[in-house]
Amino acid sequence: MNTAINLLGEKEQALRTGRLCSLMEKAGIVCALIRDNANIYWLTGRVFRGYIYIDTRLEAPLYFVRQPNHLRDVREGAVHFIRKPEQIASMLSEASVTVDAPVALELDSDAYSEAVRLAAVFGQLPQQNLSPVVRLARAVKTAVEQAMLRESGIRQSYVYERIPRLYHEGMTDIEFQIEIERASRLEGCLGQFRVAGSDMELFMGNVLTGDNADTPSPYDFAMGGEGADPSIPVGANGTVIKPGAPVMVDVNGNYTGYMTDMTRMYSAAPLDSRAVELNRLSADICDALAAMMKPGVEAKALYEKALAIATEAGYADFFMGHRYHAGFVGHGIGIEVNEQPVLAPRSRDILEEGNVIAVEPKFVLPGLGAVGVENTYIVRAEAPAERITNARTDISLLD
Amino acid sequence: MNTAINLLGEKEQALRTGRLCSLMEKAGIVCALIRDNANIYWLTGRVFRGYIYIDTRLEAPLYFVRQPNHLRDVREGAVHFIRKPEQIASMLSEASVTVDAPVALELDSDAYSEAVRLAAVFGQLPQQNLSPVVRLARAVKTAVEQAMLRESGIRQSYVYERIPRLYHEGMTDIEFQIEIERASRLEGCLGQFRVAGSDMELFMGNVLTGDNADTPSPYDFAMGGEGADPSIPVGANGTVIKPGAPVMVDVNGNYTGYMTDMTRMYSAAPLDSRAVELNRLSADICDALAAMMKPGVEAKALYEKALAIATEAGYADFFMGHRYHAGFVGHGIGIEVNEQPVLAPRSRDILEEGNVIAVEPKFVLPGLGAVGVENTYIVRAEAPAERITNARTDISLLD
Repeated sequence: MNTAINLLGEKEQALRTGRLCSLMEKAGIVCALIRDNANIYWLTGRVFRGYIYIDTRLEAPLYFVRQPNHLRDVREGAVHFIRKPEQIASMLSEASVTVDAPVALELDSDAYSEAVRLAAVFGQLPQQNLSPVVRLARAVKTAVEQAMLRESGIRQSYVYERIPRLYHEGMTDIEFQIEIERASRLEGCLGQFRVAGSDMELFMGNVLTGDNADTPSPYDFAMGGEGADPSIPVGANGTVIKPGAPVMVDVNGNYTGYMTDMTRMYSAAPLDSRAVELNRLSADICDALAAMMKPGVEAKALYEKALAIATEAGYADFFMGHRYHAGFVGHGIGIEVNEQPVLAPRSRDILEEGNVIAVEPKFVLPGLGAVGVENTYIVRAEAPAERITNARTDISLLD
Repeated sequence: MNTAINLLGEKEQALRTGRLCSLMEKAGIVCALIRDNANIYWLTGRVFRGYIYIDTRLEAPLYFVRQPNHLRDVREGAVHFIRKPEQIASMLSEASVTVDAPVALELDSDAYSEAVRLAAVFGQLPQQNLSPVVRLARAVKTAVEQAMLRESGIRQSYVYERIPRLYHEGMTDIEFQIEIERASRLEGCLGQFRVAGSDMELFMGNVLTGDNADTPSPYDFAMGGEGADPSIPVGANGTVIKPGAPVMVDVNGNYTGYMTDMTRMYSAAPLDSRAVELNRLSADICDALAAMMKPGVEAKALYEKALAIATEAGYADFFMGHRYHAGFVGHGIGIEVNEQPVLAPRSRDILEEGNVIAVEPKFVLPGLGAVGVENTYIVRAEAPAERITNARTDISLLD
C-alpha cells in the first residue's frame, strides 16, 4: 500500500492526493509523473530522489526511487527502485498498470531536456502540463499544513520580537542581517528558501535601509536593493544604519518546511511622522485586506483595494516601490514563497478556504527609504482571514 | 557597442564571448538565446532580467532587458528594452539581424514551457541545446575569474582558521554550523549557493559529526546527513558534538560570485589513530591528484587514482561514503558548485588549462563518522595544479 514512503499518515496523504486527482480530472489529465522536490515533499512529507506516478483511476500513487537507495526506512515492495527513469515503463507494465493516456509532466519546472526524456519513457512527447494543476492543488492548505504554517509564524514572530536587541550603533544593514540570520537559525529556521522558477534568487531575506531601498533588482520580489555583489543584486548593500532611517526587515520564515512571510520596521531613533504614517497605512491595508479575504473573492480585487487605500492617502506614487513598482501586493505561500493566489491587477485567482497569503503593502519614499509591514494569513470560511504572523506591527526602536 | 551593460570590461567580455562562440561553431550552432542567471552573470559580470542573443557571425551580443528597467546605469541604445520575449524577433529585424538558423537554447536549465515559448519567438521549436556548450565554455576560467576564485579561497581559508574559536562544549552540529555561517557572512560570504539543476538543495554547507555522516541523502553531494527536517534532508541533524568525534566542515565559499570549495576536520579532543590516518590519506590523495592535473589528462583517470590510493590503504569500502557511495571524487566549480570537469568513473571530461576543480576524497567509517579534506585547484599549463584553499589540512582541535 506504499505507506512506508509516506511520512504524512494515510489520511493526510489521501487528502492531498485526492485533491490533486480531482483537479487533474477537471483538467482532463489522467496520468502524471512528478519529480519536482517541492511537489514530492507536498505529496509524501519528505524529499526523495525519484518520481511519483499518479493515475487518477488507481487507488494509490506509485513511487520510483532512484538507486542507490537513500531511504533507509523504506521497505522494498512499498516502492520501486530504479537506476534510471527509463525503467519506469517496464515496472508499470509488470505491476499491470497500463499507460493509455498522455502522462502530464511538470512542464513549468522540468528542464526541457528532462521533460523530453521523461515523456520518452512512455513513448510520448511532452503534451500535458501538470504544473498549473499542482499549483492550484497546493494553494489550498490542509489543517496539517496550516498547523505547520502557524508554527512557523509563532517562531518567526518570536525572533522578530527580539530583533531590537541584535542591533548596535554603527552596524551596516548586512551586519544587522547577519545577526538576524543567526537568531533565526538558532530558533530553528531551516534557512532553505524555496522559490518556484530558476530566475528567483535570494539568500535568507532582505534588510533594507536608506536609499538602497530604491535600487531596483532584477528579481520579482516586492522590494529590491543593490545587494552586496553584482552576482546577486538584491537586498542589503553595506549601508550603515543611520539613527533616523527606517530599517525594513523581511527574513526567511521557514521553520517547518512551510514558510511564513513577515516584514516589520525598526529604527535606531524615533522616525519622522511620514514613516510612522506610512507604517500605519501599511498595517491598515493589511487589516482591510484581511477583512475582505474569504472564499470567492477575486485576488485582483484585493490588489485594487490596497491600491485604492494607498491612493486615497496620497501615496500611490510610492506604493510597492518608487523607481520600480512591484506588480503585486501579496502572494500565496507555503512550501515555496511564490505560490497562488497572486494579488495582482490581472490575476485570475479566486480565493478559496485554506489559501495562505502573504500581504505586503510596502512604500518606498525617496530620501526616506522603504516602509511597510507584511503579514501571512489563512483564508477561512468567513472573513476576516486568520493572521499567523503576530509580532507587533508598529515601528520598533532598536536597543 | 553594448558596453554599458557589461561590467567586465571589453577585453574580458570578448574573451568569454569569443570562447563561447568558438565552441558554438564547433557544435554547429550559429545563434543562441541565453537567459540562465549563471550564464548571464558569466557573460556580463552581473545578473539582469532578460536575454542575451548571440550570433557567431555578429561582432557583439545583443541584450534584451525586461521592463521595468532595473538597470539604472544602462543607457537606452546599449540594450533593447522589452516587456516580453516575443518582442525580440521584431527588434532583431529592426536591427537588421536575420535569424536564419535554429536558435540554440539552454535546454538543460530552461523549463520546458519556457523553452517552447522562447523558440516560438523565432517561429521555431526547441532544436539545439546550448547548455553543454556553455558548460564547456565556463569550465575554463579566465585570469580574471581565477583571481576571483583565489580571493574566495583566501577569505574562506581565513574563516576556516578561526573555526576552532567558534566552538563551545555541548554544542550541536547545527549550533556549530550557525556560528560558522555567521563568521563566514561577516567575512563577506554572499550566502548564495548556486547549483545547476533544480534537484540540488543545500543551505550554506554541511557540518557532519558522528553517525549522521552515514545517513544517505537524496541530493547528489559527496556527503549526506539526515538534516534538520524531512523537507531538506541533508547535513547537520542536531547531534551533540562529542569530544572524541570527528567534525567535518564543508561550508559555502562564495565570497566573490565565484565559489571555492573546502572541507576541513575538527575535533574537541584528540581523535583515535584511524581518524588521523584517514585525514592524512585524504590530504595525500588531494596532493596526488594535484600532481597529476594538467591539460589533456582524463578526469576519470583522476577518479581512478583516488580510488586506487584508497584501496591500497585498505579503505575502499569507506571511500566516498559507506552505506551510500557518492559517484565522484571531485567536480568543477566557479559560478556554480557543480561545473565541469567531473572526476567520476565514467566521465568523458578532459582537463584543460584554467579548469578549476574541487577534490574531495572523503571517507565514512561506521562508529567514527566522516573524515576527509577538500581543496580547490586551478589547472595550470604544467602539473601540479595550484591549490587555492590553503588552510592547514591536519585535524584542528576545537578551543
